[in-house]
Amino acid sequence: MTTDRPLGQDPAEDDVLDRFYGVIPAGGVGTRLWPLSRAAAPKFLHDLTGSGSTLIRATYERLRPLCDGRTMVVTGALHRKAVMAQLPELGKANLVLESEPKDSAAAIGLAAAILYRRDPKIIMGSFAADQVINPVEQFQDAVRAAVHTAAEGYIVTIGIKPTHPSTGFGYIRTSGSLGIECAPTAQGVAEFVEKPDQEAAEAYVASGEYHWNAGMFVAPVDLLLKHLETNEPLLYAGLMEIAAAWDTPKRREVVRRVWPGLPKTAIDYAVAEPAAAAGDVAMVPGVFSWDDVGDFAAIGRLNAASETNNLTVLGDGARVYADKATGVVVSDTKRVIALIGIDDVVIVDTPDALLVTTKEHAQQVKKAVEHLRASGDTDVL
Amino acid sequence: MTTDRPLGQDPAEDDVLDRFYGVIPAGGVGTRLWPLSRAAAPKFLHDLTGSGSTLIRATYERLRPLCDGRTMVVTGALHRKAVMAQLPELGKANLVLESEPKDSAAAIGLAAAILYRRDPKIIMGSFAADQVINPVEQFQDAVRAAVHTAAEGYIVTIGIKPTHPSTGFGYIRTSGSLGIECAPTAQGVAEFVEKPDQEAAEAYVASGEYHWNAGMFVAPVDLLLKHLETNEPLLYAGLMEIAAAWDTPKRREVVRRVWPGLPKTAIDYAVAEPAAAAGDVAMVPGVFSWDDVGDFAAIGRLNAASETNNLTVLGDGARVYADKATGVVVSDTKRVIALIGIDDVVIVDTPDALLVTTKEHAQQVKKAVEHLRASGDTDVL
Repeated sequence: MTTDRPLGQDPAEDDVLDRFYGVIPAGGVGTRLWPLSRAAAPKFLHDLTGSGSTLIRATYERLRPLCDGRTMVVTGALHRKAVMAQLPELGKANLVLESEPKDSAAAIGLAAAILYRRDPKIIMGSFAADQVINPVEQFQDAVRAAVHTAAEGYIVTIGIKPTHPSTGFGYIRTSGSLGIECAPTAQGVAEFVEKPDQEAAEAYVASGEYHWNAGMFVAPVDLLLKHLETNEPLLYAGLMEIAAAWDTPKRREVVRRVWPGLPKTAIDYAVAEPAAAAGDVAMVPGVFSWDDVGDFAAIGRLNAASETNNLTVLGDGARVYADKATGVVVSDTKRVIALIGIDDVVIVDTPDALLVTTKEHAQQVKKAVEHLRASGDTDVL
Repeated sequence: MTTDRPLGQDPAEDDVLDRFYGVIPAGGVGTRLWPLSRAAAPKFLHDLTGSGSTLIRATYERLRPLCDGRTMVVTGALHRKAVMAQLPELGKANLVLESEPKDSAAAIGLAAAILYRRDPKIIMGSFAADQVINPVEQFQDAVRAAVHTAAEGYIVTIGIKPTHPSTGFGYIRTSGSLGIECAPTAQGVAEFVEKPDQEAAEAYVASGEYHWNAGMFVAPVDLLLKHLETNEPLLYAGLMEIAAAWDTPKRREVVRRVWPGLPKTAIDYAVAEPAAAAGDVAMVPGVFSWDDVGDFAAIGRLNAASETNNLTVLGDGARVYADKATGVVVSDTKRVIALIGIDDVVIVDTPDALLVTTKEHAQQVKKAVEHLRASGDTDVL
């Protein structure tokens, strides 16, 4: 028994939680957060909440009480140094580098396969590196319940209770309590549904049977791999071959040969949806706030402006003069920024690129990035 | 007779125009054009019209057919190198450097006193370095008429026919034709009036007796100095002492001793207004467009946006991506600037300071500069 664990839990519980391993997939540039977020400095390497921590560090810290020393990160080879700098305690064995991006099924599947080779009884939890969650205690409670539920033989997604009929998230439809003693809130999952239209979203929220799909799940690695094998046998075979070589001198050679040919698909299609159809998916509700920081409007939400003005300023060296200005300023330079008479503005000031837009148009930043890529301005992407 | 002069003028006219000497006072930071315009790089050193010429170079070129080789610049010692780079043909004898700013009466009075010492028959014309005038031929015609009028013993202001009842300019009230043969448009000036309120401005324009005061004037240096002596005897005495030493080895010593103690006042109060009251001021109307580029909204006016969009972009290296954006972008860096969904915006991007405002708020840039000065951010002013 470690000293980190709350007193009063029985040994059986301890055993289940000891099997838990946190996996942090750190991918995705966060195009809508350009020019702050770049190919070379994606979203998860930034402090977007003014907390003083990057998103990946905050994700690691949030998991630490549950899996200190048992956390794995899967990221692009390009980000090796940056991730090691953010998570110096991670250790080489827990940093899985992709030579090229292969979408979430390969990334998460590789982590599952490596962990399965190390210990087939591991229950892994997958939590994206670029989410903002509060309060962390509620998150940790939900993960503990999910681990207990997973131990009963489920792939367990953590569903977020909707606060409004969002059309920006996928939903999870539940099918009633599973009656698990250590996880009384756990429910069966009937299906995953894609982002709905407004009418459907309102019906979902009104029914009380739907939760937001935040893409967080906890699963026994053997069960996850079983479903992967059924649905994506080529991907499964390739990942198992790589995993067998991973902790050996042959890793490099096998990765080089196998990884580039692996199919690209999302974990939702490769595992979660077919597993739900097979009755193997459960949901534990999370009663915490959750934001995937999808655009600069989110940064305004997550960094409440002071009461005296309605301008959110992010950036250590920010030198902002504002007169009748509201919105969000992200300063990644030491420049003086003067804002006069402009509302709901979004300004992102970096050494080689400047974005000026409004909160309302925050989603359209992606289009600017696509345009810049098409016109060859890739030096700033 | 020089080859530059139009054919068909009689020798008497030539004589009068030969007495003409252009003086370009190049002072004033242009605070409302911050952060483009700075103490170290004031308005007149920028190309604000997209013409490829700085304002001071354009001013020099505009005068050149009238006074090639007889043009003097009065500016701050700080701008010596920049002005010489802009006007390499100027020559040391025609560059008057102020060791510290002393307002327009001292600057223009010193030029008058130096020119008077060189040749008491000179007729000088004073034209600020930071104005935009079109078409130049109309301007040159007005200056020629003003020189002829000045030769009759007048201080001659060039008045701009108002296009609207502006409350941002001073006005000149005329008192009828002077009947000068070579300058039939010349009129007597009854008085100069300060910037009016809206009602007064409308009455002025309706009366037909008022013109805008653009601060341009042509005057025999002896007449100008006579009025200066009457109204500002201390300033006059100091300037004459400096002028006596100017083209001698004693210049440095005398300037050091005398200049710092000179009174600070505007040429309007020291010469123009009292001379008008004495009946010594005339006006020649200018039928050209005139803009003092007072703020960034003026830059939008002066640089018509292309027909396909309503965004004016200034700056050699500008890399602007605009999507549903209108307004003005001044780029003094090589950065990519992305604008999305924002109207009538003003963006001025310089290496150490960024301004984001709207055309409507362009006048309030001055307040930002004052705030930055007060808070000690003088490195960017």
